[in-house]
Amino acid sequence: MPEFFTVATPERVFEALSGFRRLAVETVALDDALHRFCGMDITSTEDLPPLPRSTMDGYAVRAADTFGASDSLPALLDLVGTVVMGRVPSMSVGPHQAAAIPTGGFLPQGADSVVMVEYAGPAGEGAIEISHPVTTGENVLGKAEDVASGDVVIPAGKRMLPQDIGLLAGLGLANVAVYRRPKAAVISTGDEIIPVSDTPAPGKIRDINAHSISALIRAAGGETEMFDPVPDDPMRLRDALERGLTSADVVVLSGGSSVGERDHMLNVVASLSDAVVHAHGIAISPGKPTLIASVQGKPVFGLPGHPVSALVVAQVFLAPFLGYLQGQELKQTPSGMRVSAELTDSIHSAQGREEYVRVKLEQSQGRLTARPVFGKSGMLSTLVKADGFVVLPIHAEGLPAGETVEVVIF
Amino acid sequence: MPEFFTVATPERVFEALSGFRRLAVETVALDDALHRFCGMDITSTEDLPPLPRSTMDGYAVRAADTFGASDSLPALLDLVGTVVMGRVPSMSVGPHQAAAIPTGGFLPQGADSVVMVEYAGPAGEGAIEISHPVTTGENVLGKAEDVASGDVVIPAGKRMLPQDIGLLAGLGLANVAVYRRPKAAVISTGDEIIPVSDTPAPGKIRDINAHSISALIRAAGGETEMFDPVPDDPMRLRDALERGLTSADVVVLSGGSSVGERDHMLNVVASLSDAVVHAHGIAISPGKPTLIASVQGKPVFGLPGHPVSALVVAQVFLAPFLGYLQGQELKQTPSGMRVSAELTDSIHSAQGREEYVRVKLEQSQGRLTARPVFGKSGMLSTLVKADGFVVLPIHAEGLPAGETVEVVIF
Repeated sequence: MPEFFTVATPERVFEALSGFRRLAVETVALDDALHRFCGMDITSTEDLPPLPRSTMDGYAVRAADTFGASDSLPALLDLVGTVVMGRVPSMSVGPHQAAAIPTGGFLPQGADSVVMVEYAGPAGEGAIEISHPVTTGENVLGKAEDVASGDVVIPAGKRMLPQDIGLLAGLGLANVAVYRRPKAAVISTGDEIIPVSDTPAPGKIRDINAHSISALIRAAGGETEMFDPVPDDPMRLRDALERGLTSADVVVLSGGSSVGERDHMLNVVASLSDAVVHAHGIAISPGKPTLIASVQGKPVFGLPGHPVSALVVAQVFLAPFLGYLQGQELKQTPSGMRVSAELTDSIHSAQGREEYVRVKLEQSQGRLTARPVFGKSGMLSTLVKADGFVVLPIHAEGLPAGETVEVVIF
Repeated sequence: MPEFFTVATPERVFEALSGFRRLAVETVALDDALHRFCGMDITSTEDLPPLPRSTMDGYAVRAADTFGASDSLPALLDLVGTVVMGRVPSMSVGPHQAAAIPTGGFLPQGADSVVMVEYAGPAGEGAIEISHPVTTGENVLGKAEDVASGDVVIPAGKRMLPQDIGLLAGLGLANVAVYRRPKAAVISTGDEIIPVSDTPAPGKIRDINAHSISALIRAAGGETEMFDPVPDDPMRLRDALERGLTSADVVVLSGGSSVGERDHMLNVVASLSDAVVHAHGIAISPGKPTLIASVQGKPVFGLPGHPVSALVVAQVFLAPFLGYLQGQELKQTPSGMRVSAELTDSIHSAQGREEYVRVKLEQSQGRLTARPVFGKSGMLSTLVKADGFVVLPIHAEGLPAGETVEVVIF
């Protein structure tokens, strides 16, 4: 059995992946933009608020009139009216005058601040007394203080959150430019693989990877086209690969976990016109038997057949790459959320490869701890029981118990 | 202007929310189950693997035959064949015999372990020599070692991740029971509110909340029905509320940010048959003017009109509640991911209310820091610039710079 062709470091793999072109930008309705990646810097063409607004229920006043006001020596002001929501006030507030104003109401001409309702009391017909001074601008959101016309409000590449959608709604943008979703063809290979709904004959196993990898791709913002399992037959693999390259932006194969079969996949990929193999083997664990190639300018991932290895490689390389295609920076560190936790047990590591150790997070006496989930590499249940993983760098010998580690959350 | 009716602590609000009934369970295709919440304990009816499998490329052997093997004194074994993927091997391995086996291949009868290919070399026609001993079970995943028939593989309530979907695929479950998605009617109210696509006349503002709150509901696994903005008219509000109660599981109103208007919303809600007001005012900042009620057994949230307050209240109360409806535990702490970070500046706080301080996360010399995003309460841009928030408990006076805080990520 031959060795791997070109074992690459994770760093080298990310370098190769950053050579692919990002996807195009498309326009979607604002309400469909949640968790999509902003396709361009979005600049406001309006001021928010368009005019000064009150941030409190109270009275619009001239701050100078409240100078020195206290419970024992309140400022006495004449009431000139009430600001109504949804209308620009017609009254103006002169010296020693005040207008009742609700939260969000526009300030009348002449007023420069708002006294909270708690500091105002009645003082006979058409008058109030103020027991607390305000400064100019207090309890007021100035014109353009939230957003000024010309401000970049959402930068290109930002993953759109509810507040981003809210801000764009406030600016009247009913449509928004986002990166197109990457479409991935997902193909499991192997004579032993059968569709999930079939009952396995002796020796056969159900297709796990097509489902788990497709789910991961969708979680990373992609769309998937799931192929039926392809047997270890070069002609049929070549046919599936060509169909995938035609219809999708990325082809994700898995299978061929043994070195012999992997060469078989390598040969088929390399035989296609305009194919470049970037990595055949990556210095990682689990996941070494991974193929990264470019065919006709499109990326091809050949993941290991082992479901655990396939998912780990997909999380570490494919998910960030799908983010990159949608305008994200391509980072060597795995995507996803991270938390700091204290390692409960020592981890030993072989040098010369980057290791991904699965851990379970637990709260213990107010501290967050990460407990390694030990188990043989082929056990999918270890991945199901874990909450995330810890990355051991390529030259690390291991980590001692008690060390604070960064856990990448699934 | 009257005071709030029944100001409740966050604790009391969660207590009231935990009185609502969870949603029913429905069956969906496995590939549609990503990020849904598992509707019941899922028990395996099969063993994974069904028979012992190799976790390495190498040779299936009897471990006893490799005892004491070394480079200088290798064990000599006869090759009896090659295990083929996808078939139960027909050969058996007797004493001093070995069979070539790929990763994932089923072990032949008689073999109890696998020697890695790196420790085996040719030794003439039909024989190999082994330079390293193995123990019984080494490099083998035993029958049922990953999952045994009868094991609970996914507990009820678990949010389904790619690996969970993979495990269920491996067990042949093409469909899975998940909690139904909560359907929310989202209604912005206020005479000043106009649809996003309209150009605001002086005094009017575009509907931000319907879009931002709907996005947050979808991020929490819900579906939304967005209503056109409803003016401050009791009859029209009542009509919208009744339509929402008919078609949705949860009604989410926003608006009426001033105390007077809030009473108007309170009066309409309270006037419906079978209405219970759980909270009119919550001891939080921002977000005090919040109404929580039950009408005909269905939850009604009356969020503040302020876009920032509305989103914070929705993240702190509505998002965990939508998780609860889908089988999650209802926790008083906000939902979402958390990271530990070092506070860059002191935060002052008023006692007697829980405060949510928006922060921006920054990497500084290998440490993660949380920088408070200061700005007036009505500024949506502060929420857009922040990465998450820090919760100051109800009795806290503030937090000093340098303190390690838990940041809830947006």
